[in-house]
Amino acid sequence: MTQIRLTPDEIHDLAHGILTRTGYGEAHARAIASFLTTCQMDDCGSHGLFRLFMCVETMRRGTIDGTAEPDIVTDDSAVVRADARGGISLLATQSGLPLLIERARRFGVAALAVNRCYHFSALWPEVEQLAREGLSALSMVPSHAWVAPAGGTRGALGTNPIAFAWPRGDTDPLVFDLATSAFARGEIELYRRAGKPLPEGVALDADGKPTTDPEAAMRGAMCTFGGHKGSALSLMVELLAGPLIGDMTSLESMAYAEGRPEAPYHGQIIVAFDPARLSGGRADAGQTSAEALFAEIAGQGARLPAERRYAARARNRERGYAEIAQSLYDDLKAL
Amino acid sequence: MTQIRLTPDEIHDLAHGILTRTGYGEAHARAIASFLTTCQMDDCGSHGLFRLFMCVETMRRGTIDGTAEPDIVTDDSAVVRADARGGISLLATQSGLPLLIERARRFGVAALAVNRCYHFSALWPEVEQLAREGLSALSMVPSHAWVAPAGGTRGALGTNPIAFAWPRGDTDPLVFDLATSAFARGEIELYRRAGKPLPEGVALDADGKPTTDPEAAMRGAMCTFGGHKGSALSLMVELLAGPLIGDMTSLESMAYAEGRPEAPYHGQIIVAFDPARLSGGRADAGQTSAEALFAEIAGQGARLPAERRYAARARNRERGYAEIAQSLYDDLKAL
Repeated sequence: MTQIRLTPDEIHDLAHGILTRTGYGEAHARAIASFLTTCQMDDCGSHGLFRLFMCVETMRRGTIDGTAEPDIVTDDSAVVRADARGGISLLATQSGLPLLIERARRFGVAALAVNRCYHFSALWPEVEQLAREGLSALSMVPSHAWVAPAGGTRGALGTNPIAFAWPRGDTDPLVFDLATSAFARGEIELYRRAGKPLPEGVALDADGKPTTDPEAAMRGAMCTFGGHKGSALSLMVELLAGPLIGDMTSLESMAYAEGRPEAPYHGQIIVAFDPARLSGGRADAGQTSAEALFAEIAGQGARLPAERRYAARARNRERGYAEIAQSLYDDLKAL
Repeated sequence: MTQIRLTPDEIHDLAHGILTRTGYGEAHARAIASFLTTCQMDDCGSHGLFRLFMCVETMRRGTIDGTAEPDIVTDDSAVVRADARGGISLLATQSGLPLLIERARRFGVAALAVNRCYHFSALWPEVEQLAREGLSALSMVPSHAWVAPAGGTRGALGTNPIAFAWPRGDTDPLVFDLATSAFARGEIELYRRAGKPLPEGVALDADGKPTTDPEAAMRGAMCTFGGHKGSALSLMVELLAGPLIGDMTSLESMAYAEGRPEAPYHGQIIVAFDPARLSGGRADAGQTSAEALFAEIAGQGARLPAERRYAARARNRERGYAEIAQSLYDDLKAL
């Protein structure tokens, strides 16, 4: 597969150009392009430039507002609301994060409820951002009802990722971002594009029977990871990132889209924890304990989450470019 | 296996008698006996009367304080601290819960940090209790470093359960309580006592190789559920229920116990979310959305978490007793 090299500026400009030509306003185009650049520079291809197809489809055939200004609402509580007002989530989330940080430091724990947003993005960049402010953070989001509950036969749950970050001082934060489906939706799409069969246990066909065919999986349902435990956690994501914050479940989001090929429309929750407040004055000791645990895990030859991504970031920053497939580049230029 | 019938009062009195004779003060004996009765009436045997062996061992050979009065600390934040001061966790948690509820309602989200406690209990009774107050709740706790990280060879993580509850008005709350290890420690102990082999993929022996022998598993390490995803979630539990709240990791808890057969000594975190505050005035609509999701899951023939336990509770309450094994009863009477 032929690869081409793009600098961060080239990635940003490519995305920004496509987005503004498609109808995204300047603030949204910058927030999205910046996000895609971050992902692409980490070799996180499934949430990089590839997602521009979805951004464009959403604008062309969705009910999205490309120039929506997020409405940030606070009161005297530990809850910050960012109403995306029908735009892509990223600008709303970025607008709410400074207030979430302030509330977490003031109250020890705080929550950002992002509402009424089109959502296509990975969650790790936002929790990493919070961890670089010294906070631990947890983020969850529903999607569309593509995932069957354990013991079920058809989609009822979203891919429902859980992202988490832990601050490590001057070291890169510990970060993970995992779909509670056995596969992320984007991964199945990549298998489909590559014509490869799925592993066993990942998907059901339209009759609720196990399948390894990505096309059949797209028409049927995905399975959760880890059997009934993964299914329970996926249900938790539905509730915390949906009804709790007054927003849609994956079932409702799918019904709302009425089959349009747009990014799912729903909410997102981010919870931030301040170790300085929660540790009872033992935040330094806590850091030492956490580092001892990380050292033990690494000492066994096991990988810490995000290690591979941080390695890609370091390499790409050092050489000044990321590589993307020529075919993807050509497809993007044709948008 | 011969079973005997015990009424809730008989379960409570049996536990209370053993606990007070062993050195637990009245407040602790009541909190523990009440908890064990709750579990036993739900046929939750692994966290019922069976745990009295551990309570007794902990008192006989641990450094536990059987009469410790919990110290509850609050400030103007959303964090409540319950310092168990070297006692069993249950009394400290119960002492902190009313303040956690008040803080969650005031701030929308709040956290209870339980510190310096011996811990042997399931987490579901406490999150269920919060859900009956109209709150959603999340609870996590480390244990001892019996669980290997994905890709590792020896224990570094605890069994690290995640419990979650969602309030359903007059209906029993949706509740789950799952170990992030493939098995709970108590389950392996039950396999050992029954002389049964473990399923594949659950445990490693002392050399870091897979095993199905419960004895070898007790000397080696357990695996996490769901591969690297379960391992990442287990690591999150370590951090949120340990260093974040200024308490021990499972590695530190195990080192602290120095091989004594006592309940693990560490902390516990409970996070409570108030739908009334977080939903932006859409709490009723949120309940409707959640119920539609539950109906879809049940309509597929899949089970909602805790269904089996609630069925056991209803049956045992109706007939007025729970059944326990005669052999367990005899062993307890001999304590």
